[in-house]
Amino acid sequence: MKIAIAGLGNIGIAAQKAAESMPEFEVKGLFSRRESFMLPDKFKSKVYSFSEIAQFKDEVDVVINCMGSAFDLPVTTPYLAKYFNVVDSFDNHSRFKEHIVKTEHYASQSGKLALVGCGWDPGLFSLARAVFASCMPKGSTYTFWGEGISQGHSNAVKNIEGVIDAVEYTVPIKEAMEKVRAGDTPDFEIGQMHKRVCYVVLEAGTDPERIKNEIVSMPAYFAPYDTEVNFIDYETFLCDHSTHKHEGTVIRSEKADGESFVGEFSLKMTSNPSFTAQILLRYALAVYKMNKEGKSGCITVFDIAPSKLFSKTSDELSLI
Amino acid sequence: MKIAIAGLGNIGIAAQKAAESMPEFEVKGLFSRRESFMLPDKFKSKVYSFSEIAQFKDEVDVVINCMGSAFDLPVTTPYLAKYFNVVDSFDNHSRFKEHIVKTEHYASQSGKLALVGCGWDPGLFSLARAVFASCMPKGSTYTFWGEGISQGHSNAVKNIEGVIDAVEYTVPIKEAMEKVRAGDTPDFEIGQMHKRVCYVVLEAGTDPERIKNEIVSMPAYFAPYDTEVNFIDYETFLCDHSTHKHEGTVIRSEKADGESFVGEFSLKMTSNPSFTAQILLRYALAVYKMNKEGKSGCITVFDIAPSKLFSKTSDELSLI
Repeated sequence: MKIAIAGLGNIGIAAQKAAESMPEFEVKGLFSRRESFMLPDKFKSKVYSFSEIAQFKDEVDVVINCMGSAFDLPVTTPYLAKYFNVVDSFDNHSRFKEHIVKTEHYASQSGKLALVGCGWDPGLFSLARAVFASCMPKGSTYTFWGEGISQGHSNAVKNIEGVIDAVEYTVPIKEAMEKVRAGDTPDFEIGQMHKRVCYVVLEAGTDPERIKNEIVSMPAYFAPYDTEVNFIDYETFLCDHSTHKHEGTVIRSEKADGESFVGEFSLKMTSNPSFTAQILLRYALAVYKMNKEGKSGCITVFDIAPSKLFSKTSDELSLI
Repeated sequence: MKIAIAGLGNIGIAAQKAAESMPEFEVKGLFSRRESFMLPDKFKSKVYSFSEIAQFKDEVDVVINCMGSAFDLPVTTPYLAKYFNVVDSFDNHSRFKEHIVKTEHYASQSGKLALVGCGWDPGLFSLARAVFASCMPKGSTYTFWGEGISQGHSNAVKNIEGVIDAVEYTVPIKEAMEKVRAGDTPDFEIGQMHKRVCYVVLEAGTDPERIKNEIVSMPAYFAPYDTEVNFIDYETFLCDHSTHKHEGTVIRSEKADGESFVGEFSLKMTSNPSFTAQILLRYALAVYKMNKEGKSGCITVFDIAPSKLFSKTSDELSLI
């Protein structure tokens, strides 16, 4: 299967590394919007400008779109669907509907298949939520993220005047998890499931109290949560907080007709981008197979039968 | 959706109770092979003899086949597929292929759709194993069952001369689970993942030492395991060991290219038959929809896209 990788951030770099170690994939090219002199010079596959990608439309089976969810994917996934089967890890829940409609418009015209929102959350966690919700229809679902870095929250702290760099860890509250695991179905307030821990490097002469207050009172991002703020020097920051570790847990608990059922699905990874890349690649196989069978348009993980993730029926049957 | 329930053991009874509390289902009839005087007189729906079921072929959308895996399902699921869409919870891993081939033969002729092996294991656990195996291709998968009663092991003890009644609990070994959870991929011996705990009621005058030795030395069933045997009186047995509780955990751990990924999927239920019944009913909805779309033959949970488990696209999108 011939793939192209669009976007050479953390996920794109991980995707090309993973693809090289899997015999199913041949990487036809890497496509970046950065000037070539800005790119690390270490790729086995050739790097092209993203503006050239349409010229490869007859040479590539699926494009793995590894760009950012905030600004890039809403534009580039619909564009890529004009020419290619495409997979992305779009994760902006409030704009999902819009992303699907825009991508569907182009994919249905081109006869290509686009899978959006494919990663661990959304993606594998969405699958877990769907299967749990269907088999425990009267239950409640809880998603706990972390311990791991949230890019959005880290950026919110970085934007404060006087901050050189910052990182935010989302930490699930153990007692809340244990309650749900034990079969309870509590109505948590927003701050009762997670707390937030920040590590901040300050510019010389900045008042730590002011920064701390700005952080803990920031609406939506920090105000509803128990937030811990730690100030550290830049060397410690670079040394201790360059991790890509992450984890998360989906729990659904149902109490009905005198019975109690609890389902739990969790993932733990030393590298968030590497795991996301592996998921994207694997689902690209399914997208390729389904498009060959005649399926086109924009889909989510919910539309993919698990058998599409395997090449041989015998592999699949061994998992029953 | 109009359903029939075949088999009135624990799962069948739970299925008719669950169906009555879900607005999606109308129970057209319960079908049993037992004489009516042997059945508990408490069903809201009418009970018929299983031999009459073919007469209902135009009145039923899906038959929920709740009979036993050992002797009944291998015969009745292929038979039912002559006339009906059908769902069963066949769980004999070594005879799966044969069950699929036999069922496929009748279902493809009748144009009906049969889903086999649908419960929590096989079923939801198979899904977890499939998704984990595809996204962590270089990892190892471990399934831990329990703590809960194994019917097969309990029966093996009951068959010993001098035993009135007995129950066996399969208990996962915590240290083994913790090892895998921590990212290790050990090659366990068969007895390193589970231990077995038996509660046995003896006939008067039976030598407990002989029974204990017969149990712990029983090949395959107990010999490879650390087995604990407890002798109790019949009253205590009936009082303390009539539980249908069960639980289980699938863990996959992958160490590759310097990274470590761990996925975990677990289920915990106060009633094994009630939970199995809920899963069967929910997947019956998918089978009904897929057959209406033209799909026939014998399938497993791997062939079902999760979107088929929901009636509205909006329900599904909220889970992304």
